[in-house]
This record gives sequence, structure tokens and C-alpha cells, in this order.
Amino acid sequence: MSVFTVAADQSVCAPLPVLGRDVTVPLVTGGEVTYAALDYAASAPALQRVWDDVAGYAPYYGSVHRGAGYLSQLSTDLFENARRTVAEFLGCRPDDQVIFTRSTTDSLNLLARTLPADCQVFVFETEHHASLLPWQGAHVTCLDAPRTPQQAVATLERALAEREPCGPALVCVTGASNVTGELWPVRELAAAAHAHGARIVLDAAQLAPHHPVGIRDLDVDWVAFSGHKLYAPFGSGVLAGRADWLRAAEPYLAGGGASRKVTRRQDGGVDVEWHESAARHEAGSPNVIGAYSIASACKALTEAGWDTLVAREQHLITKVREGLAEVPEVRILSLFGDDAPRVGVISFVVEGWNSSHFAAALSAEYGIGVRDGLFCAHPLVRTLLGSDPQTQGECGAPEAAPGEKSLNAIRVSFGAGTPDEHVDRFVTAVKELVTEGAKWTYRTEEGRCVPAVG
Amino acid sequence: MSVFTVAADQSVCAPLPVLGRDVTVPLVTGGEVTYAALDYAASAPALQRVWDDVAGYAPYYGSVHRGAGYLSQLSTDLFENARRTVAEFLGCRPDDQVIFTRSTTDSLNLLARTLPADCQVFVFETEHHASLLPWQGAHVTCLDAPRTPQQAVATLERALAEREPCGPALVCVTGASNVTGELWPVRELAAAAHAHGARIVLDAAQLAPHHPVGIRDLDVDWVAFSGHKLYAPFGSGVLAGRADWLRAAEPYLAGGGASRKVTRRQDGGVDVEWHESAARHEAGSPNVIGAYSIASACKALTEAGWDTLVAREQHLITKVREGLAEVPEVRILSLFGDDAPRVGVISFVVEGWNSSHFAAALSAEYGIGVRDGLFCAHPLVRTLLGSDPQTQGECGAPEAAPGEKSLNAIRVSFGAGTPDEHVDRFVTAVKELVTEGAKWTYRTEEGRCVPAVG
Repeated sequence: MSVFTVAADQSVCAPLPVLGRDVTVPLVTGGEVTYAALDYAASAPALQRVWDDVAGYAPYYGSVHRGAGYLSQLSTDLFENARRTVAEFLGCRPDDQVIFTRSTTDSLNLLARTLPADCQVFVFETEHHASLLPWQGAHVTCLDAPRTPQQAVATLERALAEREPCGPALVCVTGASNVTGELWPVRELAAAAHAHGARIVLDAAQLAPHHPVGIRDLDVDWVAFSGHKLYAPFGSGVLAGRADWLRAAEPYLAGGGASRKVTRRQDGGVDVEWHESAARHEAGSPNVIGAYSIASACKALTEAGWDTLVAREQHLITKVREGLAEVPEVRILSLFGDDAPRVGVISFVVEGWNSSHFAAALSAEYGIGVRDGLFCAHPLVRTLLGSDPQTQGECGAPEAAPGEKSLNAIRVSFGAGTPDEHVDRFVTAVKELVTEGAKWTYRTEEGRCVPAVG
Repeated sequence: MSVFTVAADQSVCAPLPVLGRDVTVPLVTGGEVTYAALDYAASAPALQRVWDDVAGYAPYYGSVHRGAGYLSQLSTDLFENARRTVAEFLGCRPDDQVIFTRSTTDSLNLLARTLPADCQVFVFETEHHASLLPWQGAHVTCLDAPRTPQQAVATLERALAEREPCGPALVCVTGASNVTGELWPVRELAAAAHAHGARIVLDAAQLAPHHPVGIRDLDVDWVAFSGHKLYAPFGSGVLAGRADWLRAAEPYLAGGGASRKVTRRQDGGVDVEWHESAARHEAGSPNVIGAYSIASACKALTEAGWDTLVAREQHLITKVREGLAEVPEVRILSLFGDDAPRVGVISFVVEGWNSSHFAAALSAEYGIGVRDGLFCAHPLVRTLLGSDPQTQGECGAPEAAPGEKSLNAIRVSFGAGTPDEHVDRFVTAVKELVTEGAKWTYRTEEGRCVPAVG
């Protein structure tokens, strides 16, 4: 059922150089320590290679699609080459379009605007809000969280088979959960969707940074991902896939670049001919640095080699999971169980701890950056915690006092730039905090949990 | 009628350092020359200060609003401080919201989604497509091009007075034309709008890089501008102004960050509580580098001093206009006449020349980057050229052979980073091309005009 397999005997490579690898942060207990960025699932640091490419290009920056000068032509070529690089990275079909957006959220909102009339949307409650919420105007069926990949496929098949009328339908599914890190059976879900006359879009925000994503290989209709999770934090994302719905839809934004010809009518109104290429949905001056940075990251990851990158990440996952398994107070959140294939995203709660205070202590006493909260996937986290929606805290707003039962969770996540020392330090810190307690006290202030003064 | 006045005795300062100031480009006639970036109205180079700030921050990049780690907190503070800096730059009212978008186009599309029911929109045909086209769903009145600022105000007043029913209305107007560079009487138009119960949004894409924009001073309801024209080309823009329509509207994008609480209902559906702050319209991880770069540019321009920046630009404008005035074959495009106050954006046609070939020769033979075309303001350029919409070329697609009457225009534009040498070289090049002809031949290939080989 697993989407990808990992060669067990793969040797472990060094982490890829990333910006910030030497940054030190102060500890509340005194002194400084290099920052352990373990929040890759929210935003990953830029690859050094990506930064170097951006810095190399920046003096040559010019208007894209809009100028007669040398640097405008160069920038236009750079931007359109970035599109081709992304198409190769995703293994796109010849007719697929690659549209540069601002993020996965933006990509899925764009796709939501292209749905044919009466299109039904099927989405599991386990999705990130970016995949769960953009379909509000359509007829949405929200499916209960499955407990095995097989159950996910069976649940989808049943829902699709029962739909009435049997018109156009779209399935939206994540490739890897932003909460549990577990891989979803994308190929099987795609086959089920297509067997029932539906299309499928893959939310690859958490998958693309960790695994190759083959649009043809997985046989999905669209793929969406973000630059800022793919080591390219310059404000761009991607929607790639079937051109027909995109071409038939109204332009995502109305403006220059998307419009081919604008004329006033005799009655004073305005007529517009829109482009049919990707430009149709890219109105305004393109974010060429954002697009170029994504292309640079695609190349860097491909050249590093997915086998070695995946092997290294699995090595880190094993370290974290084995380390946490030695702490009985820790409960890892999981839908599909211990043996499920996963990426470097692990959420957990600690018995007797408020998750926000635990995360604050990891930062203040160990220089480790994780995330606490509901991870923009409220229904999933509540299902995993078995908690009551009415008492559930809000995203990003830790609310419980120390010692109270936590309503949120803690998430540790990592990737191609993570050295062993970061996850080793994390495991040690969890053990120390659980056995010895925090050395400081923390309180919630303006929505964040901070060390209490005095 | 002018919005701003310039002290005549202001001494001329040096240009602000920008990236790419030492970049050389090859000439088709042999050798290399430093690139003269004279397409600021499309995209301006990054200020060196902006680049240095971005480079300084990049190693400290972290997830905004989403992490417990030190760098996440730092990045969140940086992002929210950027919002405050922009609010100060624009002289916002205490209750105004500052929303980070991707561009002016994006900002105006966002505002278009917040219009109250039955809102009427009034826009001159002279607007950039970003201001002209986003209102398609509403009842739009497109006003003819005025020939004086006074006529603009009178035209708007008449249209607003005649509207039936007299419900909510929005006026959208540019601060400075992206074609003629002429300043529009924003304060007077705002007063007219308010006197007739309408609101007004200022498209400051071309104004903000050249002049202070005071939201209170001009008494406009909203301001939109882009980072990439404000020396901060990192994929962000701004919409700032009245909160009420923004708060009442559906979120611009549905996803994480915009959603405060998401719960499943008993019937399986999903309920969402949305934020009411700026986050409501900023779903997805914020482009913190884009926002920070805009804040950096705002500070740099403010610290350089508007009086000296404006004086320097007016000095360059005088050089260009006086130089072009010596070439009888050149016709400068203007709505408001020679004496109208303007920014460093000048469009023109050359008798006997195809504009695309002229622009290509400026690039290939002089290393000067300008823009040819219709500048994403098709109705305005056609009005100024007196040309027939049916034979008019498309944006970015030069179509006429050398010697044919040009259907497009040429635009030269500059700003805070432009040295005198660039505009001097431009004036010399125009004179040489007109008197001696091009040294090379050019042809149109894949939508761009390039030197012909052999």
C-alpha cells in the first residue's frame, strides 16, 4: 500500500547545507547554542544552493514578459525555464500546465475556482485546512478519518459510488500528513477516483520536500506544493496538471499579464480576451525570484538523489521514534500505526504536560524550534487526541496552565538539511524534560508561550 | 490641482545604490556596456539596502505565526513589524488594516471581493488593467479619458451624481499613470467620491516608488501598491485601508492562518470561524521575506528623504523631456499636457519607426532596457495613439515590420537608483537612432523583437 519504498541498505549521506545552520540562539538558562530548526513541516530553511542561485540572479533581475531590455529577456527566460524545471521535477504530461502561485493554499484555492458546474468534492477530514476549506462553494463530502490506508481507499470508493448525480467530481488528498507524517495511498486513491469518473488533486506540500512526486507515475490530475516547505522560501508555490479545467475557468486574478487584448465596446463597457496558457492565472508581474528559487530547489534535490535523501531522512525518523518510544509519557499521534511509511513529521503529546509549555521549554532551554498547536488541521488533531471540539484550543493560541491536560500537540519535523545532532538533542531534551521537569516557568502572553520573568 | 509640489531649489542627490548597477551586457555591435535599467515602471531593481536586509535576515528565516522556536518568534515579530512599518509609511489611520498580498493586481482583486451587495464601481478607461479589470462581477461604469485633471474630477462627479440607485460605490483611480507618468488629482477625486457617498481606492503602484503616499492626507479609503516596483522584488504587495469591508467579506483565500477554529458538524460538514484581523485575507504561510523587503524599502526611501528623491527624479525627467523635445520625430504621449506634474515614466512613439524595433535597437546597440507595447493599459494607449482597436497589436507581441506605422509605444521609466548617465545615454541613443538609423536589423521571433542573425 506504500507509495514509495526505501532501500534498507542505503548509506546515510550528510545533510544538505542550509542557511542558518550556524545561527546561535540564547538559552533562558544562560549561554547560547546553535539553533535546531525542527519545524520543517511549517517552513524549511533555504538550501544554501537555492540562496546562492537567488543571490547570483538578483543583480540581473528584470521585468518578466514585459520588457525589451537584456535583463528583461534574461528574466523572462529564467522564469519560463523555471516552469520547465518544475514540469520535469513532477514528471508532468506534455499537455499539463505549470502555474506559479504563492503557496499550496493559493494553488488549491485556484483549482477550486476552476471546478465545472455541479462538481462534487470529496475530501477526508484529515486534510490540512488548505485542502479542506477551499471548496466551500461546491458540494463537499467530508469523509471520516480512516484508520488504515486500505480503509481510506474503501471509504473513498464507497462515497464516489454512492454519489448522486454521477457528475463531475474532484478528490483532494494529501501525499503525506502534516500532522502524522504518514504517507497516504495516493496511487490507489487516484485509481479509485478515476474508476468512478472523478479527478484527483494531490496536496504535495509535505510530500514533495521528502519524496519524488511523479504526476504520471501516481496518475493524479493535479499536484500542488509550496516553495517555503521545499527549501525555497521566496513566496511562490505551484499548481501543475490538466489544462482543460484551467483553460475553461475564469482567470484567477483579473489584470495585466492574464489579458491578451482589452478593448472598449461601443456601449462604453470593456471586452477582454484572456490568455489560455498558464499566464491566464498569473496576472500581475510574476514573482520571478520565487519561481526561480523553486526551480533551484528542484534541481538541488534531484541532483542530491532521492534514494540518499530518503535514506537519510528515514535514519532520522528511526532515531526520533526509537528515542520517544523510551519515554512512556510520550504518545505519538498516528492514524495508520507504527509500521506505516512516513516522512520526517512526528506529532505527539506528553502526559502531564501542556504541549505549549513543553514546546516553549524545548526552545528556551535547548534552542530547539518545534511547533505546538493544531497544525491547521483541527479536525484531524481532535480525532487523534480524542478531544472535545468545544473545549479545544485555537490554532496558535495555547490556553492551558502548566499541569493541565493538553488540548494541543507538539510536532517535530525535519528534512534534507537536518544534522543528526538536532534530532539527538531533541530526544535528549524530551527525556530530560519528562524526567527532571522544566528548569524555568512559562506563561502565555499575546498568544504565545514564553518564559516567565523573575 | 497637483497632488505634490517640488521645491525648485532642491539640490540633486546621488542615486540610491541598487543591485545590478555594475552589470554589463553585450552589444550586438561588439563589446559590453553597463546595463541601463530604464524599465522601473514594470519592475525596479532592488535597493542595495533592501537586498542587504533580506540577506541579513535569510539565515534567521522561520515559520511565521506557526512555531514555538526562537526563529519562528523572531520571524513572526519581523513580519508584524513590517506591517507596522508599512502603516507608518502610508500614514494609516489607527483602524486601518494592512494586508500583505502578492502585488497591486492581487490587492485590487482582493478588494473587488469585498464589495458590498449592489456596489457600483467607477473607473476611468485610462487605468492599468490591474485597476480596470478586477471589478467584472460588479456594475462597472467605465469613464472616458479626461484631458485635464479638472475634467477628471468633473467627469467623476457627474457620473456619481447620476448613479441610480444611489447605493454603495467605489472609485478606483491611479496615483500616477503607468503610461504617461502624469499625476492624477487624487485628493480632489477623493473629495468628490466622498461628497457623493462613494469610497475610493488609490492604485499607488506607480506613485509609491516616486512620491510619499499619505492615506489620511489624500483622504482615500484604500491604497494598493507592489513591492517589485518599490525596489523590493520579493513577491509581495500591499492593500491598506478601511477595515469594515475587509472584515465583512469572505476570506480571500480559504486555508490555514485565516481560520481561527475549524470543527466538524454532527451532519459531517465543516464549520469555520475566520479571523477578523488582516490574517483573514492572508491564508497560507506569509511571505515573510516579501513583507520584510517592502518594509525595508519603505524605511530606506523615508530615510533618504522624499524631497531629495523627488528633486533628483524631476531633474532626470527634465533631462529626458528636454532631450526628446529636440527630436521632431518623437511624440510624447500625454493626457494632461506638458505642464502636468509627473513621475519618471514617459511613453512616446517615433515617426517612421516600429516601436518594438526601436526598443530592440536601444537594447541591442546601447544596452538600454525600456519597454515597448501597450503597457497593460490597452484602452489608454489606443486613445493616446488614436489607433483602431481592431488593428491594434497585443500586449507584448510586436507585430509590425520595420517602417510600418507603429501600433505600440515605447516607455522609458526610472527612479531612485537611476544615475544621470543612463538617461543621458538614452537621449543620445534616441537622437542617433532617429538621425542615423539602426546599425542592425531586427525581427520578431516568439513574441519578442530580436537582432536578426547574418
